[in-house]
Amino acid sequence: MINFYKNACCLGALLAIGFVAHTQTIKKLTPYVNPFIGTGAVKGSLSGNNYPGATVPFGMVQLSPDTRDEPEWDAACGYDHNDNFIAGFSHTHLSGTGAPDLFDILFMPYTGDEKTRAGNAQQAGIGYGSRFSHDQESARAGYYQVKLDDYGINVELTATEHAGFHKYSFPKKSKGRVIIDLNHSLKKPNFGCHVIAAQFHMVNDHTIEGFRVITGWAKLRKVYFYAEFNKVIKSNDLVDGGTQYFDQQLLNGTDLRAVLNFDPADGTPLMAKVGLSTVSTQNAKLNLVTEIPAWDFTKTVAQADAKWERELDKIQVEGTSQQKQIFYTALYHTLIQPNNYADVNGDYTDIDYTTHNTKGGFYSTFSLWDTYRAAHPLYTLIQPERSAGFVNSMISQYKAYGYLPIWQLWGQENYCMIGNHAIPVIVDAVLKGIPGIDINQAYEAVKNSSVTDHPGSPFKVWEKFGYIPENVLSQSVSVTLEMGYDDWCVAQLAKKLHKTADYTRFIKRSQYFRNLYDAQTGFFRAKNTDGKRLAPFNPLQYGGNGGNPYTEGNAWQYDWYVPHDVKGLIALFGGEQQFTAKLDTFFTLNSKPGEVNGNASGFIGQYAHGNEPSHHITYLYNYAGQPWKTQRYVAKICSELYNTSSSGYAGNEDCGQMSAWYVFSAMGFYPVNPASGVYVIGTPVMRKSVMLLPLNKRFTVLAPNSSAENIYIQSARLNGKPYTHTFITQQDIMKGGTLEFVMGPKANEHWGIGLADRPTN
Amino acid sequence: MINFYKNACCLGALLAIGFVAHTQTIKKLTPYVNPFIGTGAVKGSLSGNNYPGATVPFGMVQLSPDTRDEPEWDAACGYDHNDNFIAGFSHTHLSGTGAPDLFDILFMPYTGDEKTRAGNAQQAGIGYGSRFSHDQESARAGYYQVKLDDYGINVELTATEHAGFHKYSFPKKSKGRVIIDLNHSLKKPNFGCHVIAAQFHMVNDHTIEGFRVITGWAKLRKVYFYAEFNKVIKSNDLVDGGTQYFDQQLLNGTDLRAVLNFDPADGTPLMAKVGLSTVSTQNAKLNLVTEIPAWDFTKTVAQADAKWERELDKIQVEGTSQQKQIFYTALYHTLIQPNNYADVNGDYTDIDYTTHNTKGGFYSTFSLWDTYRAAHPLYTLIQPERSAGFVNSMISQYKAYGYLPIWQLWGQENYCMIGNHAIPVIVDAVLKGIPGIDINQAYEAVKNSSVTDHPGSPFKVWEKFGYIPENVLSQSVSVTLEMGYDDWCVAQLAKKLHKTADYTRFIKRSQYFRNLYDAQTGFFRAKNTDGKRLAPFNPLQYGGNGGNPYTEGNAWQYDWYVPHDVKGLIALFGGEQQFTAKLDTFFTLNSKPGEVNGNASGFIGQYAHGNEPSHHITYLYNYAGQPWKTQRYVAKICSELYNTSSSGYAGNEDCGQMSAWYVFSAMGFYPVNPASGVYVIGTPVMRKSVMLLPLNKRFTVLAPNSSAENIYIQSARLNGKPYTHTFITQQDIMKGGTLEFVMGPKANEHWGIGLADRPTN
Repeated sequence: MINFYKNACCLGALLAIGFVAHTQTIKKLTPYVNPFIGTGAVKGSLSGNNYPGATVPFGMVQLSPDTRDEPEWDAACGYDHNDNFIAGFSHTHLSGTGAPDLFDILFMPYTGDEKTRAGNAQQAGIGYGSRFSHDQESARAGYYQVKLDDYGINVELTATEHAGFHKYSFPKKSKGRVIIDLNHSLKKPNFGCHVIAAQFHMVNDHTIEGFRVITGWAKLRKVYFYAEFNKVIKSNDLVDGGTQYFDQQLLNGTDLRAVLNFDPADGTPLMAKVGLSTVSTQNAKLNLVTEIPAWDFTKTVAQADAKWERELDKIQVEGTSQQKQIFYTALYHTLIQPNNYADVNGDYTDIDYTTHNTKGGFYSTFSLWDTYRAAHPLYTLIQPERSAGFVNSMISQYKAYGYLPIWQLWGQENYCMIGNHAIPVIVDAVLKGIPGIDINQAYEAVKNSSVTDHPGSPFKVWEKFGYIPENVLSQSVSVTLEMGYDDWCVAQLAKKLHKTADYTRFIKRSQYFRNLYDAQTGFFRAKNTDGKRLAPFNPLQYGGNGGNPYTEGNAWQYDWYVPHDVKGLIALFGGEQQFTAKLDTFFTLNSKPGEVNGNASGFIGQYAHGNEPSHHITYLYNYAGQPWKTQRYVAKICSELYNTSSSGYAGNEDCGQMSAWYVFSAMGFYPVNPASGVYVIGTPVMRKSVMLLPLNKRFTVLAPNSSAENIYIQSARLNGKPYTHTFITQQDIMKGGTLEFVMGPKANEHWGIGLADRPTN
Repeated sequence: MINFYKNACCLGALLAIGFVAHTQTIKKLTPYVNPFIGTGAVKGSLSGNNYPGATVPFGMVQLSPDTRDEPEWDAACGYDHNDNFIAGFSHTHLSGTGAPDLFDILFMPYTGDEKTRAGNAQQAGIGYGSRFSHDQESARAGYYQVKLDDYGINVELTATEHAGFHKYSFPKKSKGRVIIDLNHSLKKPNFGCHVIAAQFHMVNDHTIEGFRVITGWAKLRKVYFYAEFNKVIKSNDLVDGGTQYFDQQLLNGTDLRAVLNFDPADGTPLMAKVGLSTVSTQNAKLNLVTEIPAWDFTKTVAQADAKWERELDKIQVEGTSQQKQIFYTALYHTLIQPNNYADVNGDYTDIDYTTHNTKGGFYSTFSLWDTYRAAHPLYTLIQPERSAGFVNSMISQYKAYGYLPIWQLWGQENYCMIGNHAIPVIVDAVLKGIPGIDINQAYEAVKNSSVTDHPGSPFKVWEKFGYIPENVLSQSVSVTLEMGYDDWCVAQLAKKLHKTADYTRFIKRSQYFRNLYDAQTGFFRAKNTDGKRLAPFNPLQYGGNGGNPYTEGNAWQYDWYVPHDVKGLIALFGGEQQFTAKLDTFFTLNSKPGEVNGNASGFIGQYAHGNEPSHHITYLYNYAGQPWKTQRYVAKICSELYNTSSSGYAGNEDCGQMSAWYVFSAMGFYPVNPASGVYVIGTPVMRKSVMLLPLNKRFTVLAPNSSAENIYIQSARLNGKPYTHTFITQQDIMKGGTLEFVMGPKANEHWGIGLADRPTN
């Protein structure tokens, strides 16, 4: 791959100029962001597990309402659109995950005396909170508002990277009170969750600071805060479990709540600014005063909006209003994370619980089993600087931890899901020439992460058997297939660095998928160490996260996971005809066994768009000369499995992956192999998509007559010349240019079917 | 109090000169240290809970054998002299506590293959270890040796402040193996103990580093280590729970063991140097290379010996060999802790889990309910510089935590026991003029720790009721009595700073003991908030650590706890005659209820020398004109309740308090009120005691004819002049001088009985 970033030193400046020049001419994009998309299931659907609260791109703070006292997996983001009760507003949330955590430093305003609060609490069955209704709730990028029915308080929230800004408008003359709960968390004792230590400290008559150290899905998190109010805290009740302390300056404990009492409302809002840090209260204060120096709520809202506008502006699309809402909300969801946990001075708490300092950001929230597929390839296009930060943060885990992240949360490994999919992310970024990454360090990291045995990765066994035996490690078919892909990625970097022996080793491993293929049934099937296949076998039967060879899916769904050698897979299946026939069956076979994994949803036959193993499959028709079928199913998914409702996603949004699938697919292409720099063409949903690229380049996709009916590509031109390839390369995109499609209501079975038109790898 | 340290700037130099000059002329003292004293109970006794391993004064590392896989309270130091099995050698231990914790980074050498080890392990019922016998075991200050019977390995250990040094002599040609266990701990899940995260990292072919983060009695500890071997680690097996990894560079997990394999023994010992840190592996390495740069085991042993010699030399005594062994082992035990947890560069992990830096040391292991009584007053005499470090470390907890330590372990508050006895320690140090303490900060800390409600200290209730109601806080009689004493201390500092209102407030609180006194029974008795006394009442009945008004004792033992107003107590009891008669009964009343608290032991009537509430009581006769009875009982305790056996203490040694009692008492005096600068005279056990004091002063106590029979003071002279006071002041001691006693076998009921001869407060 060519390095597109030769003038890297000027990159920041150029991008900035591009941004300013551009916003002067186009309409605002943030109005298309609808933070309620994905926030709640409707009958028969899964929730995207998205929250509607306020955050800024890649920020550490996500200030959002929690509609549960102790959220579980079904409201892992803290919010469920079906609820009518808000427990409070906590400062950190995960977007679209299947497991809950965070929910740090909950604030909840209320009015009246202790008895009133207790009464309302009793109604809800928990300690505090208020009813609310969606008709008195609103949200946009970086801003959230809700009326608390029980108290008549209007709550408005906004955020910066490290701080939340609360604005509470109390009914006039009502007694203003705010609860801060340091014990609000995911459902205890799931993940062994409990608070190890916590503290409140009344700094002065308008400031409270403190921290909590908590175990959870992330093994151990230190969360420090520094909170300033715009009005005098007249008195306080600090509570540790059942023990109440009045007007005390400080309290240590594990079950801490603070009730802060203010003068009766005079018509001006009560406001709170809350800085966070993983390092210390001093740093939390520094973060706060740096990012929100003034009591200008409107200004902070405007700044958050501008931050989003700047990022959303990287892709300008034309389509229906609904399409744009889906698109920009999806793009917004891709940019919520990874999160930069480094303080404004660069300090952060590392994976080994030491304090370090970085100038390049310390990014975490790496839901890699999801996001390596499309979210990270998207970042390489529109977030090259952040991409380097992501990769360098992953390499920093390698340095301290011996291997790259699997699922990294608040800088800590939780080993969720399978594979080592930081590898494709890093290899992709390096091969695409993202500046600011040390290629030798990157290679050391991906190689050692591929030979150092660790949970879920028994590499000695891998090389001994040529597959993962199910009796050594469950989910063995999925692991074998995905590990093989990671190996292929390592091989590509070895090749670039002329490490021939390594290349040979890893390219050999990347072909291990063949060792589990059962030609008789046509599926990848598990073996034990004795080499015998597990029987009986039912390709419809679902696995979850252990106890079965398939991960959150079945043999049908995993039958397609050889993104680095689709040609080899086609041959394995007996040729193109058999391959496409099998795909046809896959998309139409509606049989289901008694039990389907909870993550599998959004079905088209056996295809389950609600979970990641399926995400590349629609695009595979192109590899076998039937691109119109790819077009058909991609169009179907875009129109039927994404919408603007609270159940706008077909399953967990998964930290940007479900969204990145849409962003790519709606533009017209998708990275089936996310580290090859090749994007497979599907069908452009948008009439026009313009990507703003480094060096002030633009890549435009035109499909002026794309519509609900016109889903089939009739012909294409790249920079004015006829284009029949069913893929486009990173190189072509980064040069800038225009890819133009003529669309029609009927499949053109002649376009893109030549051998040279098929994607390679 | 006069400041005795006017030339503080020269203090260090003077002390150092004093030390050098002195050691040239006297015999070595370290041979009198017998680390086996207090290491195991004999029939009917309690263990001192002392460990025999290697440590240096106030060091962070205590490298000692653990004879239990998961020690509980009955072997809280890890070692029981009654055991014949050693699990391994871990680097951190508590000396004499009633609760277990630490046991970090266990090393255990063995020979043979995995099967051999498993066989031996099976015998023992645990995962590894070896039998041993005491006839092949030895220890002295800073050095420990044992032969491991199962393997024929001779193990020798020594230590520096932050590092352990292991020397393993294997049988020739035997395969050398060493296990490192990062999951070795107190009995799980007591105190919720579990490892949250741990890591091994093979740095190179002779170095391994890593860490563990663990919860336990201390809520959360980060323990980093860096270990170098003098021989090549030929291979390794890293184990996480049931999963084994071979020859791997790195492993993360929660149940980690490493087996390091070495070449067959060639006759030269295998050695390991292990640095520790609370901050990072880098700091652990820095600590190690700074303190043990070479592979010279003998030199490190000699250095440890010299460090002990230098500290023991601060008090030179003459007595029988056995008395000297008891005395210097006791002195040694007082100097094991508090421990300086700051790294050589000053870094340490603070109570709020942030990293800080100090130049003055960050001391912890504050078992204050025990040590405020005599250990800390002793430090003010012979460890003035350390005393300032202790006080400043306590004040640093106040700054970060809002109140002073109660029981602080590894920098963390565990709220063990009652009262706020950092207060007497700080007030004593300040009033004695220890240099390096900011008096205003000290006052702020002691005052705010006396008005800020916190666990065990409901001060609003205290001031409302004038006592602690049992239905608000259990152990209420003990808390009321001890809290009153702390208040008296705050009042003294308020007085010195001319804070009249504060003085009045706290001196009033110091008299609250009167509110629980029941003249009818003659005991302090609990009341509830309704003011009614709890009934029925049995002054013999024991309380423990909750659920009863008395702490680890009974009404008889707590009847004497008004050390700041013994005169008032005498009056309360009806006068001197009633007071001494009651004391006589106390020391002779042998009745016991069915159940005696496990900490109460070493009985003389109701007096229980094995636990702290009794410690001052023998000295109270002096206050009522019967000093010969003090002399009788002090002599009895010194001769009967201390010895040189493994059960040489009458109960838990308690981080130096049981020892400090002996050190003072054997010299001839004891700080009944530990913050008054007044030492009450008992009976000198030693024929001669010389304390080396700052500014090159010496205070000498002579009792040339003291013996087992000659326990009664016949007459005394201070600096040659007749001395009839039954106390001596800090001022007199610090001036230097000689206090000389003529002893006899019969009580001289005329000496020390004048009104002016009685101690005042």
